Amino acid sequence: MRAVDIIMNKRNGKELSRDELEFLIRGYVEGRIPDYQVSAWAMAVYFQGMTPRETGALTEIMLHSGKTIDLSGIEGPFVDKHSTGGVGDKTSLILAPLVASLGIKDPMMSGRALGHTGGTLDKLEAIPGYRTNLSVEEFRRILATTGFAMTGQTSEIVPADRLLYALRDVTATVESIPLITASILSKKVAEGAEALVFDVKFGSGAFMKDFSQAEQLARSLVETGKAMGKPIIALLTDMNEPLGTMVGNFLEVEESLDCLEGKGPEDLMEVTLELAARMVLLAGKAPDASIARQLCEKALASGKPRELFLKNVEAQGGKPEELLRLRGTYRSPHWKEVRARHSGYITHIDAYDIGRAGVLLGVGRNTTTDPVSPTAGIQFHHRRGEAVQSGETVMTVWGKDPASLAEALPLLEGALHIEDAPPAPRNLVAKEIRAHEMGKERNTPGTR
Amino acid sequence: MRAVDIIMNKRNGKELSRDELEFLIRGYVEGRIPDYQVSAWAMAVYFQGMTPRETGALTEIMLHSGKTIDLSGIEGPFVDKHSTGGVGDKTSLILAPLVASLGIKDPMMSGRALGHTGGTLDKLEAIPGYRTNLSVEEFRRILATTGFAMTGQTSEIVPADRLLYALRDVTATVESIPLITASILSKKVAEGAEALVFDVKFGSGAFMKDFSQAEQLARSLVETGKAMGKPIIALLTDMNEPLGTMVGNFLEVEESLDCLEGKGPEDLMEVTLELAARMVLLAGKAPDASIARQLCEKALASGKPRELFLKNVEAQGGKPEELLRLRGTYRSPHWKEVRARHSGYITHIDAYDIGRAGVLLGVGRNTTTDPVSPTAGIQFHHRRGEAVQSGETVMTVWGKDPASLAEALPLLEGALHIEDAPPAPRNLVAKEIRAHEMGKERNTPGTR
Repeated sequence: MRAVDIIMNKRNGKELSRDELEFLIRGYVEGRIPDYQVSAWAMAVYFQGMTPRETGALTEIMLHSGKTIDLSGIEGPFVDKHSTGGVGDKTSLILAPLVASLGIKDPMMSGRALGHTGGTLDKLEAIPGYRTNLSVEEFRRILATTGFAMTGQTSEIVPADRLLYALRDVTATVESIPLITASILSKKVAEGAEALVFDVKFGSGAFMKDFSQAEQLARSLVETGKAMGKPIIALLTDMNEPLGTMVGNFLEVEESLDCLEGKGPEDLMEVTLELAARMVLLAGKAPDASIARQLCEKALASGKPRELFLKNVEAQGGKPEELLRLRGTYRSPHWKEVRARHSGYITHIDAYDIGRAGVLLGVGRNTTTDPVSPTAGIQFHHRRGEAVQSGETVMTVWGKDPASLAEALPLLEGALHIEDAPPAPRNLVAKEIRAHEMGKERNTPGTR
Repeated sequence: MRAVDIIMNKRNGKELSRDELEFLIRGYVEGRIPDYQVSAWAMAVYFQGMTPRETGALTEIMLHSGKTIDLSGIEGPFVDKHSTGGVGDKTSLILAPLVASLGIKDPMMSGRALGHTGGTLDKLEAIPGYRTNLSVEEFRRILATTGFAMTGQTSEIVPADRLLYALRDVTATVESIPLITASILSKKVAEGAEALVFDVKFGSGAFMKDFSQAEQLARSLVETGKAMGKPIIALLTDMNEPLGTMVGNFLEVEESLDCLEGKGPEDLMEVTLELAARMVLLAGKAPDASIARQLCEKALASGKPRELFLKNVEAQGGKPEELLRLRGTYRSPHWKEVRARHSGYITHIDAYDIGRAGVLLGVGRNTTTDPVSPTAGIQFHHRRGEAVQSGETVMTVWGKDPASLAEALPLLEGALHIEDAPPAPRNLVAKEIRAHEMGKERNTPGTR
């Protein structure tokens, strides 16, 4: 077998065999295949795509390029959720304890903020003492006791993805649906999840701006999951506006607590409950999505998810009482307000602009090594669809320093669109993608 | 400027600017841009193509990556011919002295046999003593005195092409019309040609089997030449059958001498005269192609081209009297015959099979370092369209050793197709491609 023939086959639109993919990817990880052949192959994949069978094989080969988390000895079912990234998206912090309270184990390996999108690990680390660099033994223990554990990916998990992603990043081959699919799925399966719910976001604040591209990715994830025998449901959710009223690291922990106490904003609760319901459904704990959602709402009202959240904070090194004490006050001393320039209806608060302002303020980062600030962020007092009077405060903004505030403010002002007429209502959870046959193959119900 | 953005622009189908191409190619040659970015770019070019302006810029950037041959002080016009490679194609050896006899200078840098195709340098080196590794000074002197000089490409000419070609070869990006165009044109322009005639071959024995692909390459060469201000004419010629009656290194020198003495086979003379006529036309020595061809025929009849050929042999280290003495006898002692299995008409002698048999016999080579034999080869006593009797000798075959003969014979027998009815006549020079405006821009006539 020769790498050049494998590249040529893909270039010519052929489906590669598992053997061909294994020869290429293993050879790359083990240093036998040079990066210039892998980058040419990745570009050929960009143009020619991959079948679900190919993407499934690639995902499995990547998955087995390193260690996987062994959850044997812990009682399942193991179900996780993954989001393609957004602005103000703290659903993980809410739904993990929520589904845990319903007897589901969520082994969650998350990422960090990058570019305009936030990162779950950075939010959790805003809780003083909270550790996200758990050892595998700690991860197993906390998962077994509190029902969910939150950690970063170790370097031993899917080394092929780290190598491939670094290469794709500098060769303009990131934007390939099958390569994105294999990258996401290999890591999620390596962490031990048996079933997965994907929150594939579309709109200005999402990785995929375009709905149809997001839908393609959602279908690819579901179909590849099916090819691998992994039940997957994907929801396409709107990321044109920031999710919830808070964007920032500690701010988002606070808003998660609000949600766990039944005081969360409607949009955030809607997305969180719809995602959590799909996890409950995949775990086989409800016959359909609407009953699953009722279970989630009831669980939330019981207060048990809040308890589990605080228990997890303690288990991962934070102090729950310290967290509750800081609530409402743990803010940067450098702050400003963004006011309505004129009266009218807020028609749009652009999530991408908010995310970029967040990077400047210290919420996010441009490169993986930049530090982030726990106390920077933006709070929205008014949101899309609401009427505002000229001069009324729409946002409170905290920056890591005065310069960052000065830089971010014009972006935030530009993000705020006020018009005379209210905007049309939007469809927050725009579409659901499932493999129809999944229910027959697995212990999960079919399409609703 | 970042290489990743340049790759992305090409991936997205944009026309790259000269600055972007220069950043990439110069950076690559000078070691600043890594090969994995260049291979991804090459694959993006494979899929998205290039405009003539882009291909022209790439060609010029490659051209200036190394030295170019300085022909100043020598009287022009400098016109060369380049073939995309075939089987039995010895037109260079005939047309170079032919156009030289009409006052045109042909600065010819040729290649070697590779795969099933023959190489001009290997043929010339079959003449005892003949040197093809001329210094630039020798090249200039011989060009000035005999009107043409035949040498190999030095390593100082177009280093970007050597690097790029080696990378394309292992990344399945060879088959890109604009990259092939830039590779061919940069080398031809570097040797000092002011105008060029291309023999773009199609058919089983050609690099481009498919007529429409060959036509695309011909158009790309002509259009890119136009974008660079270089007058170019391309002829599309049929390479389904070997050209002429001889395939082999010394054998083809002999057949070239026959042609220079007016005794050449019709197909070979036709292609040679059509190509030579286009060179005469581009040199501004005739108002149209048919008058140019008449000039070529007259020149040939004068015997002057033969004289110039022998003068060149002497200038490049060979002995003309030795060459003439060896004529008809300089053959390997290991020979066989291929006979007609049954009576009928020869409908096809497959050029690709003949070329592959040539490699086995010692005419050509599989890798650039294999040695070739001067005295191996194939002579055709009957050709396409001719009637043969069962048992009649169709080919005499000389191999470098008995084993090579045994290996090649089944291939040669399989190449010979005899049927009851004669084949349809074929169009040897199938199409001519010129840029129509060229005549107005340069001192050359327009399309006939």
